[in-house]
Amino acid sequence: MKYGVAAFPSKEMQDIANSYRKRYDPHYAKITPHMTLKDAFRADDAKIKEIAIEIEKVAKRHSPFMMHVTKVSSFAPVTNTLYLKVEQTPELMSLHEDLHSDFFGGPPQFQYVPHITIAQQLSDSEHADIYGQLKMAGMDHKETIDRFHLLYQLEDGSWQVYETFRLTGEKS
Amino acid sequence: MKYGVAAFPSKEMQDIANSYRKRYDPHYAKITPHMTLKDAFRADDAKIKEIAIEIEKVAKRHSPFMMHVTKVSSFAPVTNTLYLKVEQTPELMSLHEDLHSDFFGGPPQFQYVPHITIAQQLSDSEHADIYGQLKMAGMDHKETIDRFHLLYQLEDGSWQVYETFRLTGEKS
Repeated sequence: MKYGVAAFPSKEMQDIANSYRKRYDPHYAKITPHMTLKDAFRADDAKIKEIAIEIEKVAKRHSPFMMHVTKVSSFAPVTNTLYLKVEQTPELMSLHEDLHSDFFGGPPQFQYVPHITIAQQLSDSEHADIYGQLKMAGMDHKETIDRFHLLYQLEDGSWQVYETFRLTGEKS
Repeated sequence: MKYGVAAFPSKEMQDIANSYRKRYDPHYAKITPHMTLKDAFRADDAKIKEIAIEIEKVAKRHSPFMMHVTKVSSFAPVTNTLYLKVEQTPELMSLHEDLHSDFFGGPPQFQYVPHITIAQQLSDSEHADIYGQLKMAGMDHKETIDRFHLLYQLEDGSWQVYETFRLTGEKS
């Protein structure tokens, strides 16, 4: 089965992201607005139990942290994807690193750019239009992330929570 | 905010349910296939923390249980809703009861009929057609439920997991 790890922002932030996503993101109905912490990976039923135990240990080593959304940004020209840029704080980068230890298969291929996607698979002209509008609107939002989730994907492409992990910091 | 409590069946079961839901359930994109344990209720941020603590206690009092889907059934003539009927085992009914103690506002108004909805808001003729087909196909499936979830609803009507609770039975 296919799994991933993500944090969900507050209802307020998700509602804002969805106001764009419902028009501009074909994945709108497949997953709620999220910040990916670990990209999709495959694991069988036995392995995922071990992985969940290991993730729980990670959650206990990290405390709740401030997520700071600083602006709307774009992955263009790589892809016409717009996202809410999340500040690379030491707390967040350290949590990400801990979810990419040797146990989890090591560091990802690309540098981690924490973000919440709000639009993707846009045409060039759509991308230019919407990016222009959103850049003007601006974005500056802070909130506490105190939990994250292990997700799995159904056959229809939708993502479902398998387990919630609270960031307790009790073993940091 | 609006909250609810539900258990999600296995990926296999969810994929089967979704094969019907994507055609016959307008809520298909709002929530993945689920068995409701506690209907939607409203709570503010302070109250929901208390509620989550209380639900965690409930989860510790109950062990993983066998969910037995016995057949396809219908809520007609009340509503043209088709569902997978889940057997009313003592374990499941006791968990449901514990989620409706005085703390949680007491027993529900109607008798609990555990089920996984697969089609709703059907016209009378659609209902007759699909129910006829599905009754012939039959359904007999058992699986273990070892966790359930507290969910909240976003402005667009979609449901998101707030927290997972494992049925440990450690304090039963």
